[in-house]
Amino acid sequence: MKKTFGRVTLPGESNFLEETKDLLERWGADAIRDSDGTKLDEGIRNLDAKIYTTYFVARGHNEFAEQHMEECQQIYLMSAHTLATEDDVCIAFAKEYFDQQVTPDYDHDPKQWWEVIDRTSGTVISADDWELDQKQHTVIVHHAQPFHEYTVSFLAYILWDPTQMYNHITNDWGDKPHEIPFDVRKPFSSGYVVEYLKHWLQEEENKRCDIVRFTTFFYHFTLIFNNYAKEKFVDWCGYGASVSTEAILAFEQEKGYRLRPEVFIQNGYYNSTFCVPTKEYQEYIDFTQRFVSGKAKELVDLVHEAGKEAMMFLGDNWIGTEPYGKYFSSIGLDAVVGSVGGGATLRLISDIPGVKYHEGRFLPYFFPDTFHEGNDPVIEAVDNWLSARRAIMRKPIDRIGYGGYPSLAYKFPKFVEYIEKVCEEFRQIYDIVHDQTPYCGLKVAILNHWGALRSWHAYMVAHGLYCKQIYSYNGMLESLSGASVDVVFISFDELLENGIPADIDVIINAGDAHTAFSGGDIWKNEKLVSMLRAWVYSGHGLVGIGEPTACEHGGRFFQMADAFGVDKELGFTLHTDKYFHTPQDRHFITEDVVEPLDFGEGMKNIYALYEDTEIIAYNDGEVNMAAHAYGKGRCVYIAGLPYSTQNTRILLRALYYAACKEEAFKKWYADNLYCEVHAYPQSKQYAILNNTNEIQESGVYDGEGNCKHVTLQPGEIRWMVMK
Amino acid sequence: MKKTFGRVTLPGESNFLEETKDLLERWGADAIRDSDGTKLDEGIRNLDAKIYTTYFVARGHNEFAEQHMEECQQIYLMSAHTLATEDDVCIAFAKEYFDQQVTPDYDHDPKQWWEVIDRTSGTVISADDWELDQKQHTVIVHHAQPFHEYTVSFLAYILWDPTQMYNHITNDWGDKPHEIPFDVRKPFSSGYVVEYLKHWLQEEENKRCDIVRFTTFFYHFTLIFNNYAKEKFVDWCGYGASVSTEAILAFEQEKGYRLRPEVFIQNGYYNSTFCVPTKEYQEYIDFTQRFVSGKAKELVDLVHEAGKEAMMFLGDNWIGTEPYGKYFSSIGLDAVVGSVGGGATLRLISDIPGVKYHEGRFLPYFFPDTFHEGNDPVIEAVDNWLSARRAIMRKPIDRIGYGGYPSLAYKFPKFVEYIEKVCEEFRQIYDIVHDQTPYCGLKVAILNHWGALRSWHAYMVAHGLYCKQIYSYNGMLESLSGASVDVVFISFDELLENGIPADIDVIINAGDAHTAFSGGDIWKNEKLVSMLRAWVYSGHGLVGIGEPTACEHGGRFFQMADAFGVDKELGFTLHTDKYFHTPQDRHFITEDVVEPLDFGEGMKNIYALYEDTEIIAYNDGEVNMAAHAYGKGRCVYIAGLPYSTQNTRILLRALYYAACKEEAFKKWYADNLYCEVHAYPQSKQYAILNNTNEIQESGVYDGEGNCKHVTLQPGEIRWMVMK
Repeated sequence: MKKTFGRVTLPGESNFLEETKDLLERWGADAIRDSDGTKLDEGIRNLDAKIYTTYFVARGHNEFAEQHMEECQQIYLMSAHTLATEDDVCIAFAKEYFDQQVTPDYDHDPKQWWEVIDRTSGTVISADDWELDQKQHTVIVHHAQPFHEYTVSFLAYILWDPTQMYNHITNDWGDKPHEIPFDVRKPFSSGYVVEYLKHWLQEEENKRCDIVRFTTFFYHFTLIFNNYAKEKFVDWCGYGASVSTEAILAFEQEKGYRLRPEVFIQNGYYNSTFCVPTKEYQEYIDFTQRFVSGKAKELVDLVHEAGKEAMMFLGDNWIGTEPYGKYFSSIGLDAVVGSVGGGATLRLISDIPGVKYHEGRFLPYFFPDTFHEGNDPVIEAVDNWLSARRAIMRKPIDRIGYGGYPSLAYKFPKFVEYIEKVCEEFRQIYDIVHDQTPYCGLKVAILNHWGALRSWHAYMVAHGLYCKQIYSYNGMLESLSGASVDVVFISFDELLENGIPADIDVIINAGDAHTAFSGGDIWKNEKLVSMLRAWVYSGHGLVGIGEPTACEHGGRFFQMADAFGVDKELGFTLHTDKYFHTPQDRHFITEDVVEPLDFGEGMKNIYALYEDTEIIAYNDGEVNMAAHAYGKGRCVYIAGLPYSTQNTRILLRALYYAACKEEAFKKWYADNLYCEVHAYPQSKQYAILNNTNEIQESGVYDGEGNCKHVTLQPGEIRWMVMK
Repeated sequence: MKKTFGRVTLPGESNFLEETKDLLERWGADAIRDSDGTKLDEGIRNLDAKIYTTYFVARGHNEFAEQHMEECQQIYLMSAHTLATEDDVCIAFAKEYFDQQVTPDYDHDPKQWWEVIDRTSGTVISADDWELDQKQHTVIVHHAQPFHEYTVSFLAYILWDPTQMYNHITNDWGDKPHEIPFDVRKPFSSGYVVEYLKHWLQEEENKRCDIVRFTTFFYHFTLIFNNYAKEKFVDWCGYGASVSTEAILAFEQEKGYRLRPEVFIQNGYYNSTFCVPTKEYQEYIDFTQRFVSGKAKELVDLVHEAGKEAMMFLGDNWIGTEPYGKYFSSIGLDAVVGSVGGGATLRLISDIPGVKYHEGRFLPYFFPDTFHEGNDPVIEAVDNWLSARRAIMRKPIDRIGYGGYPSLAYKFPKFVEYIEKVCEEFRQIYDIVHDQTPYCGLKVAILNHWGALRSWHAYMVAHGLYCKQIYSYNGMLESLSGASVDVVFISFDELLENGIPADIDVIINAGDAHTAFSGGDIWKNEKLVSMLRAWVYSGHGLVGIGEPTACEHGGRFFQMADAFGVDKELGFTLHTDKYFHTPQDRHFITEDVVEPLDFGEGMKNIYALYEDTEIIAYNDGEVNMAAHAYGKGRCVYIAGLPYSTQNTRILLRALYYAACKEEAFKKWYADNLYCEVHAYPQSKQYAILNNTNEIQESGVYDGEGNCKHVTLQPGEIRWMVMK
């Protein structure tokens, strides 16, 4: 087969010219990028490859920032809950924070901008009743209620960019200067970022740059350290660090009301992505996205004027430019690049609308934690590639790339060889599928408070770390990322405003009760509930995972309990007999099961309501999986769905069953659940994938009901032509 | 040792005279009782023993009841949630009920007494918008909202006494008449029950009766069957079946407001004992208790006038006469008899105030399910006796008794021998302890919405059946029933009204969030929370089990989280780092542990808040047990506490630790956790108990700090004299 070329980005490294040439050749790479902290040397810059240059907008300019410390970025922070034991209570409000990262803002009148709250009674303390000691960073509340808890919500300056801080502390960078983040909403900074970029684009050493890789724009996601210089809280989607007195005043000017500190503090929950967003916070997000996108466009326009492309890194200072936001496409970016941890994160990148191309940075990074003697980096690479490949089959990114030190990777010839194979395979897949619409048997909508804005990264904690409370939901997204169904994300607000889009077959609602993903009190909205009931009843499907539609009201916990045929016992009806405990002998949804069922954290106290509830899995007195007919439609309940190949199959079957389309399930289909089939009707091709690194045998259905036996090599992708 | 006599009641049986004499002799029994359905023959009646005669007040008089069907007892029942799919929805409201047990009351205008509710919107439907079809037992709602759920709350007559119905159906009594329960609040019934008793007391065959055993008075606890004649819901404490139009009108007369059907229906939760009681329901309980107690007194007075004693059976038609209610002692009963399932149920009987004596009916019943060839009834008897004995040591009942057919028991000589030993041991213990105050190292209050009213039967489902959702709380009561601490039950209302009694050392709050036992929204009451905080802070103890003080508010789920040092993650702060995971190497509370820790159902997502939280048990990313100093006081958190000997010891240690009285813990103490020491300072005696049926060795502390080694035979109780 002829060797292909392109669509691959290498990280550059100094004094590694000849080997870089070799890697460019072997991997067919056509671009080289620098990194945060590394510059490309002249030899590398002169190679026949596009050059990406990392560009920091609102950090890494300390010569400017130090002159304008009043333009530092800001954040609202809450003190610890502090117990009053007497009439006066002294709150050392900044004590839990890292003073090298944040410092209280005493420039703007705390009596106007801060809030002291009695958290026991839920009342705001009059500014007359507390006083501030700036030297001690304390607030003293007078006339306190003994044995109530008090908090101070204070406005702080951020003195250190969180990403640089993290790297600095992690890598022990000693006295390397702390990069100060400044706020483009403030007058000097607003002009500075434009002027500096203009100047930068003119600089001789940047002439060779083809692509300006913005890392990123203005506001960092929330990442706050504690007084021991350890992470205190982190929210990849948090808007906390975009706030400022200027922002609040501009918001007030536009919307006619002042945002209270509590809008940001929210009991200390800080609007985590799991909290049901308040109206005020949603309006603030919209307001900030509009501002950020407008300002980012100015910079992108300059890049274009200089004849270069503008690429955005998906992360870090990305607040306001989340690519599924309303204003993102108006920025005019050419590309987005992000890190690929698996299928869901691949789709998070590849589904982004409004840019010309998408690039995924694959794992492992070429760092010593993986590339050291005695470790085989191929294992992680295979795992990463096979999980991402499923998603590429559905919606490919346009480029792949790697990060770290290529000299490290170069010491592992088997790794270099495997990546060579990956690059070839990627280009082959890309060529066949990039302009195709893959066969989708169903259209599935994931319903929560965030909708499209949190596409493929709903449930995310930090940058996608394992978390006991989320893996049983996250698996659903990972499964879907490479499944032959069309997936959209839809918010309750959209549903209430526009109804359920006509082309949706199945809605999924998944999450812990009262989170933004299950929905919380929105389930008391009679319009929502009756709309969804009517829709299922008329012949659609609803799949619930964990505590779907949960909100105790009217004698139900699951507000769609009548449709699911199951509800959760909260303890109020322990005196009521639960009659139905017997799982069915077999069920369409579990037909392929070969391993023990795994519901992850599962869900306690789920019971069947009706005799016609189809109990599919029952254990220890609890229903783990059930289905129920509702009018012409169906519902499926699953207690939890951690990611696994088997759960992917279970979910897919659940979706088809809910949609009452079982007969279409085996159209393009491998009966071995470790294999998948992706079909491209326009080009009349289909691919059979072995998603494991072992040999697999499977019956494969060819779209016309014929089943053929195939044997696939580890990780094989076999292309077939339709009859 | 001289054989003792008395304090034991035998069940009587026809044609069993000689053997009965033998049993009276061997067991030292001094009383014989009949049962529901059995009469004592003349031979038995002439024995030298007191005779108990079962007496039914408001059932078993069908000759009267059939003449006054309009005086049947009543109940509010709710239809199934019924989905509207069109503008009209037809609700077959009685369909799920057993028509031999209940029938809709059409005598009182349904438009006035019933309620149709849109459960989706939470609104009551105007009586103009629905119509009733009495023949079909249906309600048609017009102008319904499609895809809302509707319910009908209807008033029904109860046609069959639930206990008789249960026995009738269980024992297949065929065409034996259904006993109709009539309502003493209604005019004919009110007079009838008095006149009948007068007459009965005069009857020749009742002359020999010494003790009238009321089984019970007027209103049965809620026990409703479904359309398949199977139990639908059962609440041993439910007031549902005491309602009537007369009761509601009398209540309105007194209180100035009308009780809505929804007060009784409560979303279909029917005021289960686990629901936080509403103000209306509490007022109704008080109102009913007052009425019932007054009416019961009339009957008891008649019994006394006839020179007999009046004994109440604890159960069945006991609604309004729960013995921990405010008006119970005014009835003037001589005695209460109830069934003993273990220590907690023993204390439920023996702690009852306001009667002269208490009798416990022990297990096993002499029925064929236990007394059949191949089964050893001694096993259950040993288990029952050893678990009850602990509680007898704290607060003895005055008599023990048995039920069933003595002829069955008589076939098992080893059983007869064992009960002979039990009766002797009981009388020995009773003689020593009945007028003594046992040594109590601590006074413990169990805090919930019910307080004393549900003493020792908080968390009870049905008559104390196993239930997955309660055993992790119930164990706490069982453990305490025989522990050397003084136990009181206290309600939130009492606390708010009177403060915390001065002699309490430790408060326990235990239950699932939002139940009556954890407390629910009451934890938003700032007075309650600050009172409890101040109290612990000043040097008292708080022990929480499960989800204590739980109610999401002010950034806390556990409102006493600051005191417990732990909280539960609800999902809103997954982005916030939890730093403290390391259990302590050893802790006072777990010093005696010999088996794996067992938290029963446990509790998910509990985490430590502070560095000084003492994590005692940690598993799978969750805190299972922790302690925390709070001012001069301490809190202990336990995820669950199913009953076991080890958990009894853990709880006792937790209580002492919370009270900061560890130094007093080993005053009267056996270091082998399968043994216990009970001391009686007034009489200068103490007892060492082996609570198992195996030999145990233990170090035993004698109250003065001296430890002596003892070896105890299976089940041994060894009496010692203090120095």
